[in-house]
Amino acid sequence: MVLHLEGPLSDRSGWQAESCSVARAMDVIGSRSAMLLLREAFYGTTRFDDFAARVGITDAVAASRLKQLVNAGIFEKRPYREPGARTRSEYILTEMGRDLFPVVLALMQWGDKHLQPGSAGPLDVVDRPGGKRVDLSPRDVSGARVPLEGLAVRVNRDWLARGSRE
Amino acid sequence: MVLHLEGPLSDRSGWQAESCSVARAMDVIGSRSAMLLLREAFYGTTRFDDFAARVGITDAVAASRLKQLVNAGIFEKRPYREPGARTRSEYILTEMGRDLFPVVLALMQWGDKHLQPGSAGPLDVVDRPGGKRVDLSPRDVSGARVPLEGLAVRVNRDWLARGSRE
Repeated sequence: MVLHLEGPLSDRSGWQAESCSVARAMDVIGSRSAMLLLREAFYGTTRFDDFAARVGITDAVAASRLKQLVNAGIFEKRPYREPGARTRSEYILTEMGRDLFPVVLALMQWGDKHLQPGSAGPLDVVDRPGGKRVDLSPRDVSGARVPLEGLAVRVNRDWLARGSRE
Repeated sequence: MVLHLEGPLSDRSGWQAESCSVARAMDVIGSRSAMLLLREAFYGTTRFDDFAARVGITDAVAASRLKQLVNAGIFEKRPYREPGARTRSEYILTEMGRDLFPVVLALMQWGDKHLQPGSAGPLDVVDRPGGKRVDLSPRDVSGARVPLEGLAVRVNRDWLARGSRE
């Protein structure tokens, strides 16, 4: 039903999730407005006014969130100027930002399945040119889906070897 | 670089993400404490005191969040009693809750790559018995990974056919 805990992890009373990557990720992108700004960026939005209007947040919230996401390395701020207008900024996803796509897609697919009438959401993410819904599931090296009961958690030796627990 | 928008979606000024599944998902699980309670549930935690201690939140916050997650259908509350003690509750992931595993794994893998020194997080999720890190990427029907530039967003016909925009 849940993940198998390997070796020293099997006794949960003996450890806690210190330096947890899930916690660190939520510290950076764990707000509704941050996640919806990301969604918009994947739809191609780059301009401040577009972000605020399409996410439905105030300019103040949009400015504050975008600044946080720039500082975190998720967006890069680039100047642009339309003829006759002052210089403004565009917000472009960095590689670190683009790597968040599985997070957004996982939320979307779960929301489609469990939070929409008839398990049908308004939008589908499909491959090109196939046009079939893409799947996001844990897979083994052969590419086969692994169900929850086929998964285990273990200590990462590279992390232990580094000896850093900051 | 970002998703291709198909058909009527290609003009972003003509639509907004109404009834968005990402937004609905974040309304339910979009807090740091909710996500860490889920992480703990996947590690096998079921009891109130364990949840509060392992997530590092107060009893009041744990009680409030767990109640929200039960009401949302993510946990089922079950009574248990140890000899000589009063009846208490366990919190067990429902199928809807277990379906959140890709969200937790996506956050973990992104945090491992971008928020840990040396891109090494403390824990790895591996397949059994293979012992290799599992991958979580968008895949087409053949099981091949699809990069961001190979993906498109389109209107879900089932959603349109339903005609419901609640």
